[in-house]
Amino acid sequence: MSDIRTLALACRDAAQVMFALDTQTKRKLLHDMADALEAQRDTILAANARDLQQAAAKGIQGAMLDRLKLDESRITGIANAVREIAALPDPVGLVTRRDTRPNGLEVERVRIPLGVIAMIYEARPNVTADAAALCLMAGNAVILRGGSEALNSNMAIAKILRDVMERHDIPAAALTLVEDLRRETMIELLQLNDIVDLAIPRGGEGLIRFVAEHARVPVIKHYKGVCHLYVDASADEALALNLLIDGKTSRPGVCNALETLLIHRDVAESFLPKAVQVLEEHGVELRGCERSRALMQGMHAASDEDYAAEFLDLILAVRVVDDLGAAVGHIQRFGSDHTEVIVTRDDEAARRFVQAIRSAVVMVNASSRFSDGGELGLGAEIGISTTRLHAYGPMGAEALTVERFVVRGEGQVRHPSSRVGRT
Amino acid sequence: MSDIRTLALACRDAAQVMFALDTQTKRKLLHDMADALEAQRDTILAANARDLQQAAAKGIQGAMLDRLKLDESRITGIANAVREIAALPDPVGLVTRRDTRPNGLEVERVRIPLGVIAMIYEARPNVTADAAALCLMAGNAVILRGGSEALNSNMAIAKILRDVMERHDIPAAALTLVEDLRRETMIELLQLNDIVDLAIPRGGEGLIRFVAEHARVPVIKHYKGVCHLYVDASADEALALNLLIDGKTSRPGVCNALETLLIHRDVAESFLPKAVQVLEEHGVELRGCERSRALMQGMHAASDEDYAAEFLDLILAVRVVDDLGAAVGHIQRFGSDHTEVIVTRDDEAARRFVQAIRSAVVMVNASSRFSDGGELGLGAEIGISTTRLHAYGPMGAEALTVERFVVRGEGQVRHPSSRVGRT
Repeated sequence: MSDIRTLALACRDAAQVMFALDTQTKRKLLHDMADALEAQRDTILAANARDLQQAAAKGIQGAMLDRLKLDESRITGIANAVREIAALPDPVGLVTRRDTRPNGLEVERVRIPLGVIAMIYEARPNVTADAAALCLMAGNAVILRGGSEALNSNMAIAKILRDVMERHDIPAAALTLVEDLRRETMIELLQLNDIVDLAIPRGGEGLIRFVAEHARVPVIKHYKGVCHLYVDASADEALALNLLIDGKTSRPGVCNALETLLIHRDVAESFLPKAVQVLEEHGVELRGCERSRALMQGMHAASDEDYAAEFLDLILAVRVVDDLGAAVGHIQRFGSDHTEVIVTRDDEAARRFVQAIRSAVVMVNASSRFSDGGELGLGAEIGISTTRLHAYGPMGAEALTVERFVVRGEGQVRHPSSRVGRT
Repeated sequence: MSDIRTLALACRDAAQVMFALDTQTKRKLLHDMADALEAQRDTILAANARDLQQAAAKGIQGAMLDRLKLDESRITGIANAVREIAALPDPVGLVTRRDTRPNGLEVERVRIPLGVIAMIYEARPNVTADAAALCLMAGNAVILRGGSEALNSNMAIAKILRDVMERHDIPAAALTLVEDLRRETMIELLQLNDIVDLAIPRGGEGLIRFVAEHARVPVIKHYKGVCHLYVDASADEALALNLLIDGKTSRPGVCNALETLLIHRDVAESFLPKAVQVLEEHGVELRGCERSRALMQGMHAASDEDYAAEFLDLILAVRVVDDLGAAVGHIQRFGSDHTEVIVTRDDEAARRFVQAIRSAVVMVNASSRFSDGGELGLGAEIGISTTRLHAYGPMGAEALTVERFVVRGEGQVRHPSSRVGRT
């Protein structure tokens, strides 16, 4: 048997133990993990220093090196995130519905853990603790496969967390870090469909496409956020301007940032010049359609590639549209099912927009930047699903569980004639 | 572009229309479909006669030929099933949760259709109408790929349904029947992961494995039902006997029939002889462990293959176990995550069993034969998922939808400093 299969089988056995843990035990486990991460800070920092050194030697720099870097305050941040996850409501055991059938059967829908979750991620070592904590809180076992740049940091963090599990008499295999980072090993992991219940890729589009291509296990993808703000004919223009600036400039590198502005033609002449002025003050480059460019001399032309792009940068595509239907049509063609916003004072327009847009998050008069597990009340987030199955939008602990049926009877049979003594 | 991709793209466009249909329109559509099926009964029967003729020429007979065969009463049954689906509560638009965030944002979780569902099934032509109706009622578009034996019947049924859609000004592409039944075309369909939101295979294990192997779209599988009945030390033996006979003999060929009996050693000596007597009266062949065979001379020996088998026949595997934990261990090793039953008068034992068993349906003192969408209150069923993701257990209309986020605000921004005029 291959090494990765052996690891995964042990993880599956451990999932059975995780499945049955009560809330208090899980909370105590996570708190002890958080304490251990802080207590063994120096071990983590020493491992991280080795990662940073190797990364620098490979010529990695800038934002990527920064994502890799840990320091005292970041470790405190990681520990506190684990404590926050411990404080979440436990989704496991939650009875979501209860019904008594005419024959007296009591049917409950009850949340249980998914089982074994494979997290596939890139350079940030904080994901190791963060994703593990959320998976464990939801009663799952987890297989972590991080990026090679962070391997030493990930191994240090995983060892600390596994030691805590063993002290709690929980098999450490419930938190398994894959140290063999060869591609063929990742592919094999993604094909263990008798063992792994769900794979969650978290990282750039290349990683997610790789996982989707090779996986034979279920995958919840988060491709990209090509988020739109549509300024309706009846929009409050000052409000629209606030949402536009917040959505585009408050953190352009994240998936819930705005990428495209759609403007109803009736307000384009009034709104676009104001928008362009404020956006340019914020250093945003605009790329527009013919009608936008007719209103705003000197604006760059937008191509179809621009409309499909997740710029993750201070660039905004702009299009003037004939009406709400045309805005919806543009979003259907170019959108990524992540988050779309309408700005309107017209309730009927808002209703029509919500009704027609199939994205995971649809907002009326609010910033796209709220499309986030924490902001929407999930407490923590393991990713934002753009897969229209199981979970759609920000995924918290509950999205790492599934509902099943628990049925209680008093001897009911489906075919009474099969009752012994009556046949 | 390949033909199947062209078909699927048209189906995806039509999904956008289905997405926005209101409940009354969908109900009227389904009722008109049911009426049309009955009105054009002769067309369906003529097509079905061609299928039966070709099947007979290929040497198909017995249960398989029977599954293929339609007659007047079966067509009435199909039409009535469509009417029952029309009467179901519409899951689309259901607000499952509502929350106001501290910043005043109103966050709703609202059910929306999945989008495009590919149904892959075998010989029963009733699935064409049944699955289509359930997918449409949940606001989805559907691609139907049935078995070659039923192609003429399926084409006749699909044409009738599509004609009704066109009369309702709904694009007929929302109900697309694949008439090119080559394997490579099915594989291509299963790899259209930019178009198809979910594939549901419904049929034998071979079909399901084929779909799982080739799919790059999400799949909800229903492999098989190796269902267990565990008779606990405190069981009411008469009740256990009723559940055993109902579970094994009332319809042995279905997935919620019992395949294995587990008996606590303390009651084996008393219960097993009675069970064997009644089972043998019903023509059931038993295959037991050493301890069962020591109690019941002449019982066949059970192999590990027997314990893993879905017999779909009047055969029952038997094992005497030391305690509840050993019963759970057996189910973990040999079960298929479908349905397990405990018979007990001990509430604590019931609690422990439910807590330890991870199957989709767990029953206390009720027959496994109730593991069915209709019996558990879903109204209709598109399959029984043994995939621990999205839906687990019987799947009704709601399982063909997903929750997304609808957020309403009054201009809230995430970083107030980005408000224009305050920067």
